[in-house]
This record gives sequence, C-alpha cells and structure tokens, in this order.
Amino acid sequence: MKEIYFNAQHSPIGAFSSFTLGYPNAKGGLGLELGKPADQNVYIGLQSSDGEHYDALPFYQYTEDDRKRFDVERIGEDRNNAYLIEPFDKEQIKRDFKLSTDTWYAGDLEFKIYSPARSIPDPENCTEGDLKKVILPAVFAEITIDNTNGKRSRRAFFGYKGNMPATNMRKIDFANDKYFGVGEGRNTALVSAGRYVRTAIGFSMEEILSCKLEENWTTGLGYCGAIIIDAPPGEKITIPFAICFYRGGIVTTGMEMSYMYGRFFKDIEAVAEFSIDNFKELTDACIEDNNLVENSDLTDNRKFMLAQAVRSYYGSTELLDYDGKPFWIVNEGEYLMMNTLDLTVDMVFYELRMNPWTVRNVLDNFSQRYSYIDKVSYPNDNKMYQGGISFTHDMGVMNSFSRHGHSAYEKYGISGCFSHMTHEQLVNWCCCAFVYASHTNDKLWIDKNLNLLNECFQSIINRDDADPENRDGIMGLDSSRTMGGAEITTYDSLDVSLGQARGNIYLASKCWAVYVMFENIFREKGIKEQAELASSQARKCANTIIKNINKEGFIPAVIGEDIESAIIPAVEGLIFPYFTKNNEALDENGPYGDYIKALKNHVNAIMRQGICMFEDGGWKISSTSNNSWPSKIYLCQFVMCNILEIDLKDTLQSSDDVHVSWLVKGENAYWCFSDQILSGKAIGSKYYPRGVTNILWLHVL
Amino acid sequence: MKEIYFNAQHSPIGAFSSFTLGYPNAKGGLGLELGKPADQNVYIGLQSSDGEHYDALPFYQYTEDDRKRFDVERIGEDRNNAYLIEPFDKEQIKRDFKLSTDTWYAGDLEFKIYSPARSIPDPENCTEGDLKKVILPAVFAEITIDNTNGKRSRRAFFGYKGNMPATNMRKIDFANDKYFGVGEGRNTALVSAGRYVRTAIGFSMEEILSCKLEENWTTGLGYCGAIIIDAPPGEKITIPFAICFYRGGIVTTGMEMSYMYGRFFKDIEAVAEFSIDNFKELTDACIEDNNLVENSDLTDNRKFMLAQAVRSYYGSTELLDYDGKPFWIVNEGEYLMMNTLDLTVDMVFYELRMNPWTVRNVLDNFSQRYSYIDKVSYPNDNKMYQGGISFTHDMGVMNSFSRHGHSAYEKYGISGCFSHMTHEQLVNWCCCAFVYASHTNDKLWIDKNLNLLNECFQSIINRDDADPENRDGIMGLDSSRTMGGAEITTYDSLDVSLGQARGNIYLASKCWAVYVMFENIFREKGIKEQAELASSQARKCANTIIKNINKEGFIPAVIGEDIESAIIPAVEGLIFPYFTKNNEALDENGPYGDYIKALKNHVNAIMRQGICMFEDGGWKISSTSNNSWPSKIYLCQFVMCNILEIDLKDTLQSSDDVHVSWLVKGENAYWCFSDQILSGKAIGSKYYPRGVTNILWLHVL
Repeated sequence: MKEIYFNAQHSPIGAFSSFTLGYPNAKGGLGLELGKPADQNVYIGLQSSDGEHYDALPFYQYTEDDRKRFDVERIGEDRNNAYLIEPFDKEQIKRDFKLSTDTWYAGDLEFKIYSPARSIPDPENCTEGDLKKVILPAVFAEITIDNTNGKRSRRAFFGYKGNMPATNMRKIDFANDKYFGVGEGRNTALVSAGRYVRTAIGFSMEEILSCKLEENWTTGLGYCGAIIIDAPPGEKITIPFAICFYRGGIVTTGMEMSYMYGRFFKDIEAVAEFSIDNFKELTDACIEDNNLVENSDLTDNRKFMLAQAVRSYYGSTELLDYDGKPFWIVNEGEYLMMNTLDLTVDMVFYELRMNPWTVRNVLDNFSQRYSYIDKVSYPNDNKMYQGGISFTHDMGVMNSFSRHGHSAYEKYGISGCFSHMTHEQLVNWCCCAFVYASHTNDKLWIDKNLNLLNECFQSIINRDDADPENRDGIMGLDSSRTMGGAEITTYDSLDVSLGQARGNIYLASKCWAVYVMFENIFREKGIKEQAELASSQARKCANTIIKNINKEGFIPAVIGEDIESAIIPAVEGLIFPYFTKNNEALDENGPYGDYIKALKNHVNAIMRQGICMFEDGGWKISSTSNNSWPSKIYLCQFVMCNILEIDLKDTLQSSDDVHVSWLVKGENAYWCFSDQILSGKAIGSKYYPRGVTNILWLHVL
Repeated sequence: MKEIYFNAQHSPIGAFSSFTLGYPNAKGGLGLELGKPADQNVYIGLQSSDGEHYDALPFYQYTEDDRKRFDVERIGEDRNNAYLIEPFDKEQIKRDFKLSTDTWYAGDLEFKIYSPARSIPDPENCTEGDLKKVILPAVFAEITIDNTNGKRSRRAFFGYKGNMPATNMRKIDFANDKYFGVGEGRNTALVSAGRYVRTAIGFSMEEILSCKLEENWTTGLGYCGAIIIDAPPGEKITIPFAICFYRGGIVTTGMEMSYMYGRFFKDIEAVAEFSIDNFKELTDACIEDNNLVENSDLTDNRKFMLAQAVRSYYGSTELLDYDGKPFWIVNEGEYLMMNTLDLTVDMVFYELRMNPWTVRNVLDNFSQRYSYIDKVSYPNDNKMYQGGISFTHDMGVMNSFSRHGHSAYEKYGISGCFSHMTHEQLVNWCCCAFVYASHTNDKLWIDKNLNLLNECFQSIINRDDADPENRDGIMGLDSSRTMGGAEITTYDSLDVSLGQARGNIYLASKCWAVYVMFENIFREKGIKEQAELASSQARKCANTIIKNINKEGFIPAVIGEDIESAIIPAVEGLIFPYFTKNNEALDENGPYGDYIKALKNHVNAIMRQGICMFEDGGWKISSTSNNSWPSKIYLCQFVMCNILEIDLKDTLQSSDDVHVSWLVKGENAYWCFSDQILSGKAIGSKYYPRGVTNILWLHVL
C-alpha cells in the first residue's frame, strides 16, 4: 500500500474519544465525543539543523492568528510568520502503521503513537487495578529527536490548536513542575515530563516559536498550546506524551450516567499523571497488542483493513457507570446512535473474542429497557394479529437515552429509511444471545433468559404467517409499529433488494439460523415440542428459499415480489450455526444440505463482474445498488470461504486491493473507517465501528 | 429609531449565557458560555389562516436537512419543504424593545421575551429564596396567538436547531407531561406547559411541520426541536416559555468552581420547573425592571443604548461558588477574560447602583490572588528602583483562572497591545475601592484594607519618579514586568495617544483623582503626613498638566513625548472625586480650580469636527485614531455635562444618533453591544459588557 496520508483513530477504550491523525491539513486532533475528526491543527515538528526554520508533519494549516481580534488596528502585519514552519517534503516522510502503534519518520524526527486494542476485564469481576489500566482515558506518543550529529540544540514541538467552543487552551504544569502539559479546559490535554520539555500557549504555533521572550509562553490568550522540547547537541532523546481526554459528572440524559474512568481519575491531571508514571508499562502493552495482527499470516491489505476497523471501533466505545454498574455502549460512528443492535450482531465476533461480558451487558439492557410487544399485519390489510416481543434499533443517540421501549431511529408510517426494524432486531438479539451462550458457556444466563428466548421464538413464528398452516419460514407480516408502513432491514439506505424486510432472503437466512439454534437449545433443555417446531420452521425456510432459485442459478433478493436483484448477504445467516457449533446444519450432506448447496450455487452465480462485483473487482452487496458495505463484505467473505468453502483465491487479492482503496483514496481517507461506499466514494456510515467483522479473518478453524 | 433588526441579549443574571435574537437569519439562539451569538436557527411562527403554509419571524435560514446523511441514496428529494415556512413581510413586523422586555408583533402572532435587570442580593447576606429567584438560569417568553376570528385551529411553534458539538436535541417532557420541552443535552432547553402544547424533534422545522404522523415527533434523530402550539378557533391564547441554561459540576480550571445556581437547581429540568411554576411572578418582575429606564426622562436614543448596554453586561456575568463562597465574574465580551480590572472600574457605577457586594468581591479577589510586587525603571535604562504593589489586568480567560499574580492578557518585552497595565490597574483598583467605600459606607472593609491602600499609595508615588524631588504627579517609570518594554493603558488597541501609559494625561487624570481621594481618606483616618503627601502629589499632577496646554488650547495626549493628539479621556479621572463626594476638588474655585478650568478649555477646544468629533458628529476619543469606544464616550459625556457643566445640548442629539447607528447599522447589529467602532464599523470589543457606563445618564444630581 503506497498511500500513507489516511486518518487513523488512536483511541482509549471506552472513553468515546479519539486522537485522530494522518490526513493532511487541519483534519485530525483530539476529539471528545465526536462522530468525526476534531479538525484541529496538530503541530509535530523539528527545527532545521541550521536553526533557521522548522519542518513539521503536514497536519496543520497556516491561518492568520487570532491576535488581530484584540489588536484591531494592526491587521495585516507579521505575514512573515507564515513560512516559519514548513511541512516536510512528502517523499521524506515514512509511516509504519500497525494495530496499536503508528509511527511517522521524517528527517531527524520520529513520532510514534500508541493506542490500546485489548480485552476489557468485566468490571464486576476484576480488580480495580486491572480495570483502571485498560479504561484509562489516554493514548500515548513519543517523539524521538536524533541530534547526535548536531552542534547546537534543536527545538521540537508537539502541540495543537483547540476549537471547542467556550473552552480555552491552558497550561497544565502541575505537581511542582513534574508534569508539563497544555490542554483545552478540563477536557483534552497533551502532557509530558522531564528536563527537556516546557510548555507554551500562543495565538499560533508560529507565534510561540518566534517569540523573543519565552516568558510570553505563559499567556492565557490564544487557542494554540504546545509542548516544546529542546534536544541538546550530540544526543538522541525520546520524549513521552500522554494524550488525555476527560469528561466529568453526569454525561447522559434519559438515564443518568458517568464515565466509568471517573471512578479512578478525578480530573484530566490525574489521567496525565497516571499515564506518565506508568508510561513504559502502558506503551509496552500497546506493542504487545500489535501481535493480534502482526502474528497472523494475513496479507498486508488485510492487516491494514483489520487495524483500521479495530481503531474506529474503539473510538466509538463508551463504558459508563450506571448506579455503580457498568453500562457498555458502542456508538454508531458518525451517527452516534447507541448500541445499534444490527451493528451489535455484526461486532459480536470481535466482542466475544475480546470481552464477552459486553455482549451480555448489551443484551440485558435491551431486554430490560429496550424491548417492546407489538401486533403484526399483512401488507395492505389493517387486520392485526398476535405479534410478540422485539427489540429497538438502538438505545438513543449522542449520550441521550431514548424512552423505554423506543429507539432514537425508528419512525412510523413509512417503508424506507427510518422505518422500524422489528423482525431484524428480533433475530439479531437471538443471534447474539446464542453465540454469547455458546462462546462463554454461560449457562446461568441462558437459564435466566430461557423464558425470554421462548417469547422471542414465538414472536418470530408469529411474523411468518398468522395461520400455522401457511407458514413458509420467512417473514410475512409487518409490525404494528410501522403503522401501515413496512419494516426494513439494517440495509436501510440500499434499494429494496436489501432494504425491505418482508420476504427478504438476507433476513430469511438469519431466520433459518435462528430456528436452527432454537432447535438446538430446546433439545438441550428437553423442550421437545418446541424443538420440533423450530426444526420444522428451519426446514420450511430452507424450502422456500430453494424453491425460488431462478434460471441464472441464484435466489432473487425478495421472495414473492418480483425483485430479481442478486445479493451477497443471502449467505449471512450461516455464520451463526457456525459459531454455535451447529455444524451438522452447515453440512452439505446434513439435514439442510440442499439449502447449503443452493447457497453455494448462488454464490458461484453472483460473484462475477456485472452482478455482485464491480468492474474493478470490488464486491457489490446487491447487483442493483452501487452502495456497498465493507463490514458486510468481510462477514460474507468468511461465510463463503470458511463455511461454504468456496475457493475465491483468484479474486480475493484484487478485491482486497479495491476494498483498501475504499478506505484510503481521496477524501475517503479523512474518515478512517467508512462502511457505505457508493461507487468507490464513502458516502455514509463514516468513522464507523462495524468493520470489526474482519476479526473473522483471524478465526482459526 | 427605524431599525428593528438588531440582536439583543436576553440573559439570566450570573449564568454566563444568553438567548440572543433580532438579527436576521440563523444569527441568534441559546448560547451557553459563548463570546458571541449561538448562530442557531430560531423558529417562531404561525400557520396562515388558510392553513396552507407558515409565516415565521426571520430568525432562521433554510438548509437541506440532515436526513440525507442517513438516507444517502435519496439526496435531492423533498425540496418543496423549502417553501413551507416563509418569513413574515418585513413591513408587517413591529418590535417594542425595552430594558427587560422585547416584543415582536407580526400578523396574529405576538412574541415577547422577558429577561431580568435587577439587583443580586449578597449571597452571604440574604435568604436562599431571594437569591434563587434572581440567579435562576432562565429567561422567559410568551407567544400570543389571536385566533379569535379563526374558523379552524392554527398551529404555532417556537423551536430551535441545536449546534453544540457532541450534544443532541432531545424531548424534555417530564413530571407526567406537566412540562413539555426540547433541548440540547443537559445544557439548553425551551420548556412550556399546558393543554395547547406538545413537543417535536426532527431534522428540520419543515420536516416537523410537514410530518404526516405526529408519532414521528418522538424521533431521537435531528438537531431541530420545537414546542408546537395548536390554537383553537375563536380563541386568543398566550403560551409561557422558559428558556433555560445549565452547566453542572466544576466548570473552571486553575481554581475549581461551580455555578452558584447549582445550589438550587440540580439540572435543567429543575430550572424549567421553577420557571414555569413561578412564571407570573418572574415575568412581572421583569416588567418592573423596565422601570429603571422607562421611568426616566432619557431620549429614545439613550433609552435604547442603555438597554443594549445593560443586556450585554448581564450576558457576560457569571456567579460562581468557590468552596461555598460567592465568586463574581464579569466576562470581557467576545474576549472572555474574567474581571478585566480596567472594565471593572468603568462598570463600577452600574454595579454599585445594583449590587455593591460584587465590587467588594472583585476587589478582594484581586488583592488576595491577583496582585503582585514589581520594581520600576526609566525608559532606556536598565536600572531598577523600588516599585510596589499592583494588580493584574484580569483573572484569566474563558473559565480558566490564571496563576497567582498573573493575568491571561499581559505579556513581556513589548510596548503595544498585550503589554502590562501595571499603573493603570493600580489606580483602577484604588478608584474602585474609594467609590465602593464612599457609596456603601463600608467602614469595616476600608479599615481592613487601609494597609493595602497605603501600599498602593506608595506604589503609585514610586512610579512618578525615583527621586522625590523630581516628582511631577504623573507616571514616569515602567514596571519591571514589561522587561524593557513599556506599559500601556486600557486603550490598548489605539495609537500611542491613548495606548502609552507613561506621561499620558488620561492616566494622569486618574492619578490626580486617586491622590485627591487618598488625601481625603488619610485625613479622615488622621494620617496627616500621608494626607499632605497625597495633596502635594495631586497638586503636582495638576500643575504638570496645566503647564502643557498648547497653543490650540488643549493638552496634548502624552506629556514630554511630542505627541500632539487631542483626547477626550483627559477628563475621565474627574468622575471619581465626584462619586466620592470630593466636591471641593472639582470646584472651579477650589484648590484645583486651575486644573478644572484647563480641562473645560480642553473640552471646548477639542469637541469639534476634525478634532474629537467625526464629520457626522460621532465622538472620536482621540484625534489621531478612528477607533472610538462608546463606553468611554458615555463616561466622558457625564464628566463634561454633569461635572464640568459644559453645555453640549446642541450637539448631543445628533451625536447620540450616530452612537446609536454604531450599534444597529449593518453587521454591527449582529453583535448587540460593541465597544470599538472604527469609522462606524464594529471591529473589536464586541458583545461587550462595558457599555453600562451609560447608567450615569440616570444619575440624579
């Protein structure tokens, strides 16, 4: 991969914050609770060896400084400063990008960022010390200046220009000058320590560097703050930095919660102190975290996509304290909805690998507050039938919890984007529950939730057909919550091939999976009648799908509605029997062998250019939409290659090339990980956590 | 005054927040801790009588709504909504603007805003109930809809589109639907009550109004929130609104403080509840507040300027709780510096009239934390002499307290804007202290501070000349804090005629005043020797000034430096003997009669076009700068008319016309009250509190 100027998120775990860097100009910075980069000037640079000017990494943009607002009659002076700092030549800069470290090399400067990617211990089942280190709201950096051959001291700097409203940049030198820092109010900070560093505030980095009297670095005016490093001649020095985030007090509405890190750190100074005091241990742990990716035999393309996905996931994570108990949230990227359940079900493979308790936490919060009971009806018919339980799309948005039983997202009386996802979320909750139980063997939880699962089972069946005789295993009725509209799926912004829920073979594949898993659990628990009902529903579902294979050899996207699109997610559901060890169900010679074979044929029929591949080899999740979603591609790649065992080797390298380009080319590179790519351009679901489905690439058979 | 489209601040007292409205488009809104309007869309409108569309006050701007970010393939649909709301014809709109009420009339809609302008009881010396009502962080509004002749229900609305980062718009319906509200996170809210109102959230006001199913008003997505009012046919109804602000927890750095209102209100819901429950009493009090201006015999021009000044003052006020004690702050308008002492000394006349305890509070905080001891030196000479105590320019900026003994503003080694104001602030502190003591007769405070005042006296004298023999009563040495630069005055952005401190006759007039007041206090306390020294210094100061009258009959701005500018603030100092009842000193036949006469001649010589008047009659504080400051003009008008008793009647009406135009014409009208007007254009000190010097117009002789 030649491109190095892409943004990456460097995020603490569960702090809903990110130090973002890599896209040129003022497009990164310290973002607290944002669904996008902070768009700040970030200054990382070094004095030239002749002392005449400064070279910096290209993450800032020169602007006339704010002093003109005060000194109003002297507008237009001091333009010379514009050339005091110049970006390093692009060819001179190298970047080594990994999961948990990101290193920039330019001339005699090296800048390395460390951020964690690791398990979060269950807060109800671990020591305070273990939890504290993992949820510390800081990431780390080092600047190394090689002045070995220098005859004079060289000045380096790491600073940024704040842009939060109603917050100023201040010096944070504390503990009798043991720690030196700058930061925005109580919320963000860069902090260092040691004899080589001092701090400065000014209207601009240029003003700070050209200041004749360093006493003026103490000013309170100006949004720019920097840590200044003077590297002595003949030495190579490495300076540690803590990049800290903090928000105290109650941060949510609807339900009142605080960040859990507030238990351990009373303010941003405490965060900085802990970070600097434990710098070696904390950064070593990040280097260790790299192994998750580095020790694999993935291609460089895949290592890159996995690292970007994981980084954007952590930037969206938020661990809160609700009356002394943990409350886990993954925010939905740029949209900032909380615990969007159709993302949870995709991210579950990552979370189960890293911290299964978060899955249980989210499932319980859905069942306790974000579930509801509806009725159902046939299209164009007002008559209502028994529905059942389901779960909301999300728990609210942007730290604002929605009311009991309602999401922030779902609206009424419509059939497109923003409609209800009742059936989708019902099967998603069940899928998560089954894989959680299978992965953790948490029998207690399953036993506690058996009644609820039974309710879910009945609710799914009720949505098939009101008359048991007419059931065909797939969704036939819409929720009364749609109020005359129609339910949609997670693919809300795609065309009807994936957007419509009723009759959809993507959703049907999840229904089949859920029935298979229900059969299993009912059998395990000795509830024979239900097991047989589940089995019969799975069979009916498979039959319905098989029956609809068209003359091109694939199954059209929506059954019974003349929609002939070919869709990749027809195979999605297979992931769940796989991760719940229902291997028989996936066996070509097993009870659903016909369905499995049909899906194999489906894949072979559609995985070609003009159908479900773009001309360049990129995957196209629906033949009738140009909007394609990397997270879902990763997931379906796993199903195709590892479950259906289809040999895609010939094309995977070139399609991976395209999928990488979706993340790094042009303006897409600003958004770190994006999950809606329309003809190569990131147009939605930016700064998104869902890409961690690609953790499946690391799954060892 | 014909112009009605100017912004005005409607601010709670001490909450550092403002509902700002009046300038067209998205230029007002609910601003929390901002040095500018919030730039939000504010929607206040009414359905047309035919039900076909909505007319609104022109305080919003149509934008394509944010739903496109979610529903990415449907970009470009629904443009029709753009015309659903149209602004009322400008000719149809009337405005009645007063100190504490501001009413807009358009068609069958009346919109009235109430905000307080009254005394704040001393928190250490009042009942909780009295304090709670005054520092409640809310202002109030009413919408009256006249549907008397209507045959159908008409829908009205009051809403806004939030724009705080990381905060969403949410419904705030609470107490079993007793209160209905919308707001941004925990920070701002509109709340109402009663059977005619409901609330709605949406991507835009247009979406809310065109929504087919009102169930969709419950969505969590969209930054627009509104209170919807359905006015039944045949009725005229009036709906109450609380416009609420809240910031909880510690809000400052350097010293950790919370808003004092937090003592009484645990969150924004509590603020709303109290506001609505006590609506009549709270709004009646605002109507009563109008009397301050309305019962005066001021011209309409002056009533307007006074109201605007007072409003911008309250928007800058911040009452904090520091370890259980009150800490009073006036923020410096757009610059947000805290308790800028050269503003305090001008605003002291307003504060003493309204709440003298705030003056004591600020003076004590300056003496306890924001004072320092320096040395002094002659220009171009490194030798240091005894200096003494002085006070910092400010206490920090934007809720960030600067370190002990240092301001946010003052820098080192320079002689222009941002240099130290050591002498200026020293006399300012003394002036405030003397007028506070005289006004309140707070003997205890004076006794406690007598040593400090003595130190101040010695410090002022030391700045005259190191050799007592050579003292001439005016400043001759600069503070060591300037590190080789030169001290400046409050007029920091003007040319040297007012910017330079040393030799300046503006500062000299304050020195004279301080000496006069010192003489008085020393005499009162029986410290005879010091009284005589003070008297002799005052005499020397007057002599020095008189000696420098030029052939045009005025005194050049800076003595001994060939600066021939004519300046209005030469008379400023006279205000202090006046407000400390040192009437003899101001008597033409008294001990300083020669100085008083000289200043009268000075005024008569300069108050003409081409010198200290612009061509249009506006006052020009320095003949050599086009940057003029309304707050200082008001103050000097008082000195000229009421102390020097110069008859300016002929010109005052037309100069007031010009001074009004500075606040309302063109883009100036966006900034409410601005205090730096360069050739008619507001170029600095915008959204500024200092204009309350015009409270002097109400001074009854």
